[in-house]
Amino acid sequence: MPPDRISSLGEKKLISRIISRSASFFRPSELLGLGDDAALLDMGNEYLALTSDLLIESRHFPPKMSHHDMGWKTVTVNMSDLAAMGAAPEGFILSMALPDLDLESFDSLISGVMEACSYYGAPLIGGDTNEGDEIIMAGTAIGRIRKDLVMMKSGARPGDLIAVTGPLGLGAAGTELLLSGTDTAGFEVAVEKSLKPIARVKEASRMAKSGLVSSATDITDGLISELGELRDASGVGMRIHEVKLPVPPQVSEAASVLGVDPLELALYYGEDFELVFTAPPDAMEELSRIMKVHIIGEVIESPSIEMVDKHGDTYKLHVRGYEHLRP
Amino acid sequence: MPPDRISSLGEKKLISRIISRSASFFRPSELLGLGDDAALLDMGNEYLALTSDLLIESRHFPPKMSHHDMGWKTVTVNMSDLAAMGAAPEGFILSMALPDLDLESFDSLISGVMEACSYYGAPLIGGDTNEGDEIIMAGTAIGRIRKDLVMMKSGARPGDLIAVTGPLGLGAAGTELLLSGTDTAGFEVAVEKSLKPIARVKEASRMAKSGLVSSATDITDGLISELGELRDASGVGMRIHEVKLPVPPQVSEAASVLGVDPLELALYYGEDFELVFTAPPDAMEELSRIMKVHIIGEVIESPSIEMVDKHGDTYKLHVRGYEHLRP
Repeated sequence: MPPDRISSLGEKKLISRIISRSASFFRPSELLGLGDDAALLDMGNEYLALTSDLLIESRHFPPKMSHHDMGWKTVTVNMSDLAAMGAAPEGFILSMALPDLDLESFDSLISGVMEACSYYGAPLIGGDTNEGDEIIMAGTAIGRIRKDLVMMKSGARPGDLIAVTGPLGLGAAGTELLLSGTDTAGFEVAVEKSLKPIARVKEASRMAKSGLVSSATDITDGLISELGELRDASGVGMRIHEVKLPVPPQVSEAASVLGVDPLELALYYGEDFELVFTAPPDAMEELSRIMKVHIIGEVIESPSIEMVDKHGDTYKLHVRGYEHLRP
Repeated sequence: MPPDRISSLGEKKLISRIISRSASFFRPSELLGLGDDAALLDMGNEYLALTSDLLIESRHFPPKMSHHDMGWKTVTVNMSDLAAMGAAPEGFILSMALPDLDLESFDSLISGVMEACSYYGAPLIGGDTNEGDEIIMAGTAIGRIRKDLVMMKSGARPGDLIAVTGPLGLGAAGTELLLSGTDTAGFEVAVEKSLKPIARVKEASRMAKSGLVSSATDITDGLISELGELRDASGVGMRIHEVKLPVPPQVSEAASVLGVDPLELALYYGEDFELVFTAPPDAMEELSRIMKVHIIGEVIESPSIEMVDKHGDTYKLHVRGYEHLRP
């Protein structure tokens, strides 16, 4: 038999394997936030939130994405992880490996990074450049959050409502249309969501400051996968309702063109830079007065992820998302 | 004529280009430490020091380097940048792209990272794993340093002495021997320096706490290149003396086997994870009582990098180092 390979594990099990190895080297108090969207460093009254994501041209950037938008997306994926914790962006660090780009492309890539950094209020404070065979962008975002306001995956309680900050499936629809080479006329909103996603940093700041949220994460790995994370961290279950899901008509139309189930795009695909979060009903109502919330379900005791379909029938959903390193 | 490409600029000019673009987006006060070894974030009485380096298997790891040592080196190159500022390591973040390794190799890679993190006192607090065609390791190290103790490139003054923390050229000799495929018997120390470098974090901490150092940096890009950095940041010049350079016999022997000038290995190559620093003569004497210092020259007014050779003749050195993205 061939030896076990990392492709047999998938990303989440690989990360568990890394974390279990960390535990033998470090005290638990040094490992705050492991398994959450960003790591936390204890700074007294505040946490410093730190997160890193690495993007590879051939794997993470849709076809037709401009260099400018590659730069923008690199910053956005990292800012989305800060948003998930409610942290205010403080800085961004970028390490790149680049093929021998022409200067115009290079400047465009850097402009995309700078515009996004400026948009999110996080100056580019350092980095590294290297030679590579394709564009590899490794970003690290640094943020700050008051300890008593930090949003974790672990606070959901039965009876809480589940909500998302925006529509589901648009980023997925746009990306799949671009990947398939289909004519994208009429799908401009989806394509824009795919090529120039925006992290919910402002909404996250409002949510965190309100102190009303019981748990939160971003849904870049797919809604159901992330609901699974909230469930596991909180020791609860999740029930969502098909009729409440904010899936725009463009997603259904794209699914029809692509010959896929629109729910596959909305629930499993990822690429939406929205947040999913929970709050008790009263708190959710208060939140809905200060920002847009789409209530999609409720936290339950039984540790499953359940869907109530449009006929009122309930079935269990298999927790899966987009996993790197899985064949 | 073909359009300008980034290979025509070299890494330092590319970074200048990025910094000049940053300046139009951010206030100078937000960009502390740009051009130094690590970025600085203002945290009140302290700076948070942040640095990121990306290593690619085919370009940054010598042949025969084990997965364990790749992990170790990834941490070390980042810790060396913290050491250059005198910052105490607080945490490490690792984003990786990996081919489909067998689990034994994966565990070995992670063990190398963990052992180094533990050695430098910086827990692995987060990261990201991706699929890739070869091993790409992007590390970010976070450290803290009291504002009044931070070591910058910019404080060297004429009359200060120049010193390094350890021998020169061993890492270069080891790496070149491995690259050439030569038998390395008798060159164990050099090979060990290449395969398992150690960042001078402990020495840096002593240097910073002493408050005696006027400027400092690490010499991973080659001594002369880094002296050029201290010169440019401080607005001074540097003079070093061939007879004072701590070049071990093994470097000369390796140079002879390889058919290169030992000074090429010692002055220009990089791969030595030592620090170069300046201090007024009295301060340097005090420092030499608390740690090993090798005095190699003195800071001068004229803005050149000068070498006094073994015959007492003085000549100017061309500032160059190992530059990525330079053909």
